[in-house]
Amino acid sequence: MTPPTTGLPAENTTDNNDHLVQSDDPEHPANLIPSLCAKFWTLGWVTGTGGGASIRDDDLVYLAPSGVQKELMKPSDIYVLSLAAQAQSLSRRQRVYLRSPPVYKPSQCTPLFLAAFTKRNAGCCIHTHSHWAVLVTLILEQQRSKEFRINNIEQIKGFGKGFQKSGNLGYHDTLVIPVIENTAHEEDLTEFLEEAMDKYPDTYAVLVRRHGVYVWGDNVHKAKTQCESLDYLFQLAVEMKQLGLPWITDIEPTIPTRKD
Amino acid sequence: MTPPTTGLPAENTTDNNDHLVQSDDPEHPANLIPSLCAKFWTLGWVTGTGGGASIRDDDLVYLAPSGVQKELMKPSDIYVLSLAAQAQSLSRRQRVYLRSPPVYKPSQCTPLFLAAFTKRNAGCCIHTHSHWAVLVTLILEQQRSKEFRINNIEQIKGFGKGFQKSGNLGYHDTLVIPVIENTAHEEDLTEFLEEAMDKYPDTYAVLVRRHGVYVWGDNVHKAKTQCESLDYLFQLAVEMKQLGLPWITDIEPTIPTRKD
Amino acid sequence: MTPPTTGLPAENTTDNNDHLVQSDDPEHPANLIPSLCAKFWTLGWVTGTGGGASIRDDDLVYLAPSGVQKELMKPSDIYVLSLAAQAQSLSRRQRVYLRSPPVYKPSQCTPLFLAAFTKRNAGCCIHTHSHWAVLVTLILEQQRSKEFRINNIEQIKGFGKGFQKSGNLGYHDTLVIPVIENTAHEEDLTEFLEEAMDKYPDTYAVLVRRHGVYVWGDNVHKAKTQCESLDYLFQLAVEMKQLGLPWITDIEPTIPTRKD
Amino acid sequence: MTPPTTGLPAENTTDNNDHLVQSDDPEHPANLIPSLCAKFWTLGWVTGTGGGASIRDDDLVYLAPSGVQKELMKPSDIYVLSLAAQAQSLSRRQRVYLRSPPVYKPSQCTPLFLAAFTKRNAGCCIHTHSHWAVLVTLILEQQRSKEFRINNIEQIKGFGKGFQKSGNLGYHDTLVIPVIENTAHEEDLTEFLEEAMDKYPDTYAVLVRRHGVYVWGDNVHKAKTQCESLDYLFQLAVEMKQLGLPWITDIEPTIPTRKD
Repeated sequence: MTPPTTGLPAENTTDNNDHLVQSDDPEHPANLIPSLCAKFWTLGWVTGTGGGASIRDDDLVYLAPSGVQKELMKPSDIYVLSLAAQAQSLSRRQRVYLRSPPVYKPSQCTPLFLAAFTKRNAGCCIHTHSHWAVLVTLILEQQRSKEFRINNIEQIKGFGKGFQKSGNLGYHDTLVIPVIENTAHEEDLTEFLEEAMDKYPDTYAVLVRRHGVYVWGDNVHKAKTQCESLDYLFQLAVEMKQLGLPWITDIEPTIPTRKD
Repeated sequence: MTPPTTGLPAENTTDNNDHLVQSDDPEHPANLIPSLCAKFWTLGWVTGTGGGASIRDDDLVYLAPSGVQKELMKPSDIYVLSLAAQAQSLSRRQRVYLRSPPVYKPSQCTPLFLAAFTKRNAGCCIHTHSHWAVLVTLILEQQRSKEFRINNIEQIKGFGKGFQKSGNLGYHDTLVIPVIENTAHEEDLTEFLEEAMDKYPDTYAVLVRRHGVYVWGDNVHKAKTQCESLDYLFQLAVEMKQLGLPWITDIEPTIPTRKD
Repeated sequence: MTPPTTGLPAENTTDNNDHLVQSDDPEHPANLIPSLCAKFWTLGWVTGTGGGASIRDDDLVYLAPSGVQKELMKPSDIYVLSLAAQAQSLSRRQRVYLRSPPVYKPSQCTPLFLAAFTKRNAGCCIHTHSHWAVLVTLILEQQRSKEFRINNIEQIKGFGKGFQKSGNLGYHDTLVIPVIENTAHEEDLTEFLEEAMDKYPDTYAVLVRRHGVYVWGDNVHKAKTQCESLDYLFQLAVEMKQLGLPWITDIEPTIPTRKD
Repeated sequence: MTPPTTGLPAENTTDNNDHLVQSDDPEHPANLIPSLCAKFWTLGWVTGTGGGASIRDDDLVYLAPSGVQKELMKPSDIYVLSLAAQAQSLSRRQRVYLRSPPVYKPSQCTPLFLAAFTKRNAGCCIHTHSHWAVLVTLILEQQRSKEFRINNIEQIKGFGKGFQKSGNLGYHDTLVIPVIENTAHEEDLTEFLEEAMDKYPDTYAVLVRRHGVYVWGDNVHKAKTQCESLDYLFQLAVEMKQLGLPWITDIEPTIPTRKD
């Protein structure tokens, strides 16, 4: 039996797999997505139903729906999709949901989240409309730049070195986040997001001009940490711009002399 | 029996219809207005008893009173009014309340909320004193402009296309919000708000110079989403102004090439 | 029996009047001061034990102590003082406390709060270190000005017309808040605060250069509303300064034409 | 038996001293560090697992681990270390933990916290990545300065006069906070932090360029108060810079004339 793709249970579906989003464990993806999104709402990342988050647990992908007020989301609002079943689908654009909420439609962010899961084996992907992210893309637009670059800031250490690499970036490393141009329809961003992933194999984030940012990680902890660190750096970068301070500097490393 | 118009129960009124504001359902308008206003207080929208919100449920209109601390409001503070009874009133300025709170006076915002309900069939109207909204009107004042215009920002998609139209604005569409001049008495804004509604038949919001903004929607969800999205855009616009970035740009659409 | 003035119960005091700060009523001043101060902490008004609040209930004055973390204050931390007993004291600087907390010393703000209670019959006085207030005094210092003046902003309506006058300021009225210079010791501000009260008989607030603001009102509701409205205006004023917008403008009133 | 230094209980350790982090008292260091860090997260001080806090109770030092989301930390995540045992260690870099959490590694901040405890007898040390602190170090970098200096701001009174001195700074005193250059590895900061402590014997804080700030105090109350006051001053300083206002001014003290 094929689950419906419309977001509404088909009339001939007797089982909507509601058990997939029912758990007493606060760490269960169906509980974690609402609690994370409520926190993100207070940070201004998912204002006005914008933005969202998705968690992958092995083969299962849990997705916030379209148009939901993110601080009011409930576990029963969550879509669940099988990566394996999706891979066998005839069409890239056709989604195969194991479980659909009774009210909401699927999010246009879905194929972008799937790109992080399938191309990077990510465990979580967060999409924010943070105005710091948008302002950074606007500042870069004036410089005709398609890359955010910053170095010599401690918080850069909050990022991993890259896909399948161990360890994090160092203080003197330059963090580089590609910027892709926004499209009229969010799902059309997918090919450009995937291109950016190919061109920047170690990046954990892609900025979308005049729109926001997609950030992922091997698990929820890493995706959230990288998303927070990046938003911190975007805010700092905007404030540095307002104060006339450059994002890239050439600093002589400070070497400790006293050893034991 | 005619309910009182003073905001205080008339002595000959034996029934103040208190049942209209008593419900265990958190989604009941008399419970929802206080919880929404408490949230808006944390956003800085209703500081110092300013601003407010009103919900229409079929013929009944629920209104926050005047002068209440918005984060401390209780269901028992709510006014209730019948649109049908109001329409039969001899005077536009005379209000016919089915239920009045024991303490507070009616809000001067009342006729402005009613304009959204009667002229646009709105289900909810929110009035904020957000300083981002006020700053936008001040920036526009220097440009002798009576319109806020912004385009090519993703969050614009948070707005409906217009009254009785289906679907939302697109990324490349220009969002246009009219600005009316403030008046000494808030209820005197009504005719100018109605004029702006007539001149901008598709707008869901009207800015009031040096004062704030009125935003409405077909229901609470849409009014809140549009109000959040608009406040986000006002904040972004002020920050863009500080960084010397224009609100309106001419951007070549990005077209996806890979189809399936 | 004279209660102690040191903030610590004298050894010969058998009764510290702890009943004065023990109540189940959340509106009791000893409960209200801690809950208000916790809220003010989240607004950045009482950071680092700075600022405070005092409530007068008829003859009794309830005061936050010195050096307490304002978001952690408890009813048992509150001082209580009798205005009548204080008036009979031989020295202006000697305090006569009916009730003292076991740990904390009296606040140096005490005589400033008392000035609002005795000279203005205020029911509540709030002192904040809001950085918006401090920035306004710094901007005015560069202009060698001792008055904050702003007009034609809706939120000005949040202020009463003045001591023993009914009604509030209008939209076109100019709000004037005097600025006094800071002193090395906070209690030395008292004479300058009182001078400012004499010179500006209708003001409900006095700015203190490089320090913060004192705001009062006939009761807790009015003091809080005026303090919130003022902080809103200070923030707006700083942002207007950053955008090159003037605080005082000459605006032609907008007159409604349609009457009924 | 020597406890492990890896952060993981050694296999031959039968007792991990879990009782050291188990208490019903909210003021116990193992409970206080998580509740403080959750509060600091809302202030933007410990974004993305950055920053942290440590409390010393006599000989025992309680430490947040590395890489934990600070608003989600639990008492069971806390490391405990004995200062006396640590002093007897053969190596400055080898840590002797009485209690280690089952998951997390020790924080690289550990030797910096220990410096505050051993050289200053501090009871608590807080490390923030506050972007106000970072911006202040960036502004000073452009001025080739290694000192943050500000005077004539009331909040300066929130700092003690210095190590083993009684009383706090006065309004007219100049607060001086040294800035050290950041190093690639956080623990390499230790020698420079200790040098700064030697050169500035009365300071309660050291700024780290492009990184953040370390603030300590005789106890939790004083460390938190000083950290809040400092962050307030850093924010004010950045805003003063944006408005073209100097951090150091020469002000004639205001002397009260009316005595009694």
